[in-house]
Amino acid sequence: MDLVNELRRILPAEQVSTNATVLEQHSKDESYHTPHLPDVVVFPKTAEEVSRVLAFADKHSIPVVPFGVGSSLEGHVIPYEGGISLDMQLMNRILDISPDDFLVTVQPGVTRLQLNKELKRYGLFFSVDPGADATLGGMAATNASGTTAVRYGVMRDQVRDLEVVLADGRIIHTGRRSPKSSSGYNLTGLFVGSEGTLGVFTELTLKVYGIPESVMAARASFPSVESAVKAAASILSNGIPVARIELLDQRSIQQINIHNHTSYPEQPALFLEFHGSAAGMDGDMENVKELCAEEGSQEFVFASDAEERTRLWEARHNLAYAFVHHSRGKQQMSTDVCVPLSELPGAVLYARKMMDEYGLDGGLLGHVGDGNYHALILVDPDDPDELERALKVNSYLVEYALSRGGTCTGEHGVGVGKVKYQRQEFGEAIEIMRSIKLTLDPNGILNPGKIFPVR
Amino acid sequence: MDLVNELRRILPAEQVSTNATVLEQHSKDESYHTPHLPDVVVFPKTAEEVSRVLAFADKHSIPVVPFGVGSSLEGHVIPYEGGISLDMQLMNRILDISPDDFLVTVQPGVTRLQLNKELKRYGLFFSVDPGADATLGGMAATNASGTTAVRYGVMRDQVRDLEVVLADGRIIHTGRRSPKSSSGYNLTGLFVGSEGTLGVFTELTLKVYGIPESVMAARASFPSVESAVKAAASILSNGIPVARIELLDQRSIQQINIHNHTSYPEQPALFLEFHGSAAGMDGDMENVKELCAEEGSQEFVFASDAEERTRLWEARHNLAYAFVHHSRGKQQMSTDVCVPLSELPGAVLYARKMMDEYGLDGGLLGHVGDGNYHALILVDPDDPDELERALKVNSYLVEYALSRGGTCTGEHGVGVGKVKYQRQEFGEAIEIMRSIKLTLDPNGILNPGKIFPVR
Repeated sequence: MDLVNELRRILPAEQVSTNATVLEQHSKDESYHTPHLPDVVVFPKTAEEVSRVLAFADKHSIPVVPFGVGSSLEGHVIPYEGGISLDMQLMNRILDISPDDFLVTVQPGVTRLQLNKELKRYGLFFSVDPGADATLGGMAATNASGTTAVRYGVMRDQVRDLEVVLADGRIIHTGRRSPKSSSGYNLTGLFVGSEGTLGVFTELTLKVYGIPESVMAARASFPSVESAVKAAASILSNGIPVARIELLDQRSIQQINIHNHTSYPEQPALFLEFHGSAAGMDGDMENVKELCAEEGSQEFVFASDAEERTRLWEARHNLAYAFVHHSRGKQQMSTDVCVPLSELPGAVLYARKMMDEYGLDGGLLGHVGDGNYHALILVDPDDPDELERALKVNSYLVEYALSRGGTCTGEHGVGVGKVKYQRQEFGEAIEIMRSIKLTLDPNGILNPGKIFPVR
Repeated sequence: MDLVNELRRILPAEQVSTNATVLEQHSKDESYHTPHLPDVVVFPKTAEEVSRVLAFADKHSIPVVPFGVGSSLEGHVIPYEGGISLDMQLMNRILDISPDDFLVTVQPGVTRLQLNKELKRYGLFFSVDPGADATLGGMAATNASGTTAVRYGVMRDQVRDLEVVLADGRIIHTGRRSPKSSSGYNLTGLFVGSEGTLGVFTELTLKVYGIPESVMAARASFPSVESAVKAAASILSNGIPVARIELLDQRSIQQINIHNHTSYPEQPALFLEFHGSAAGMDGDMENVKELCAEEGSQEFVFASDAEERTRLWEARHNLAYAFVHHSRGKQQMSTDVCVPLSELPGAVLYARKMMDEYGLDGGLLGHVGDGNYHALILVDPDDPDELERALKVNSYLVEYALSRGGTCTGEHGVGVGKVKYQRQEFGEAIEIMRSIKLTLDPNGILNPGKIFPVR
């Protein structure tokens, strides 16, 4: 069968590409995982087109891998079995904004910055901020989160309804527009985080928030990681409206200073943001400062205006770049475990110890309110020994997290990189996941090889 | 086969009962739905015992219906096909409290008040408050919520991990102890709200919260339902730390006055509660008062101390009783639709109109932040004409909600009462739910006839 010509019967010819550059762009993500070319890239414009492609692929058992902007970090979008890369970039329209319902409906190729730019005109914003300007379809597929999850929740908490095209081409809606429901099974929550293995999202209805009346940010330095985490716990349990609470270790602050020509004390630090009412904010800010002082914070600085605040968060968001840019020939491998809150200080200290032991450089940063931290390990992809040491440390950090009730991935997802930990993490429950997969995708065409081996 | 004797081979004899009173207790819930006797009631003490009962029942295709305290409102626990009522009351131990992780692990028969009594010693509380002192297993099974969902979320948001016994007796864990995860499929979210149709919960790990530093409550009266809802929307979008925001219509306030000898203005009202830091609270409270005044509130009263606050919330929680107690021979039928936020005022006004048109008395109350409201309709169970009129109004309110993007049940669940709306609400997605059910429970033994017809 001539796959490309068959697809050109189904879709307009210009929406089906085998251009070498296009294939290469769809062979990789932003991770260290080995690229693999798809046989063809298609660019659907409607759910009906997605449905036709899937029904065709299902009939002929051709793999289909959905693709957003390729910002995934565990090889999710790499088509290891070839087949069709389903690029959603032409489905990039914001279909509805309902300010009174705090809801938007978007196509999956809309990116979060594109959405936030539009929402600003309504005094609204979309909360999930994974750093990259990912597509909302991709963010839902991996259950992405980021710095604001401590306040607003993760991607799964924002998705109210999905239009999903199933492997056989059927189109369903999983949810409703009401804020709550105890009706039917929670399919929305099941599809979110399924990484393209259960269906392809063609429409998302998402929760949005009013831009807070008052936003404050601050930076606090601490003598140790433990004291920083303790201060974070006090702030979190005091009813203070924390929107972001990020831990950066000493090495990370050092790199921020190098990259941004700042002179922050080279100590573990918390970067904080608060969203609340103007009336409530003043009292709370004094309170935060005191709670940090009680844990020995030696420098506490408010970033009161928008410009200072932006500078602070840019420094945080650009941390990976700050490392890579100043380390010739190096790339970044990011670990992503998440542990119970009480285990975070120990996990972070263990990570630094392992990196030191294996001669690896890089930063440690944590979403302290979520128990989720990343080791940004610098690796030279052309140095197999260093790559192997980094992989070994990554696996030690996962083992540490799993042995303490944590998970191998807090927000990046499983992709191919974390497949090997699924059995250890879930035990027999893996069989239930597998049976759901086989029920919804009996021919195994949807993103094969991701999350767990099906057969 | 002699079912009872077979079960007595599996469990200690005293954990298997066919006592007439025991059977009768397990034939009904708190709703208007027709009772039906189980053949036998069993009282397991461990997951292994549950596993043995289920493996046996599965082999012989005997229905199994899990039972908590029987406070469900849509007939969930009624064993319409007879078989085994699986009463979880002996599995009522709190297994672990981890204050630093903000987690507890409980057996399914622990009730929310039992848990909260214990948590208080740690300065913690469990947030979900459906009114009844339900078991936590039952609350997870129906994805219960209540007055505090606007701040802390619904039951599904609190469940971090479940131990579940599957139909064939296998025992799995669905989640981990870390605050976030993007690993595997979201089985936890799928089992929560599955109403005993996919498995039996034998252990729950739940999120708990620090008791807030400062709690304030208030009552505000408004000239109309619309103005009360508008005030609620302003408060919600202002970053004020609302923990409860309940709408009561004029008829409800009237009944509260009769029952409690209060003299609240007989107008639509908001009952409010705020959880925050002491430092932030003062400014916010002035703000709330102003926002209510802007929507025309004519009386605004703070309940500043704990006693006054308790009085306010008791009046709210006892509303159903206040109606039933003063209406000789009447019982309560509670509707439970949930609509997009902007549709709430229209839905509440429509409900009153329909009740008037069909000559029915009762109150209307709403979880305003969630779009969820209840019509508490007074019905005489011995008056078939009144019962039919009430059922008709209930169905009109569901139709209204569904036609506006809402759901037939915001928090009570489907049970048997809302089975007939599932197809209309979910369309083709019902087939996916059905295929998941058939995969996990191929012999259809788990709570048959609930949520949707399987075959």
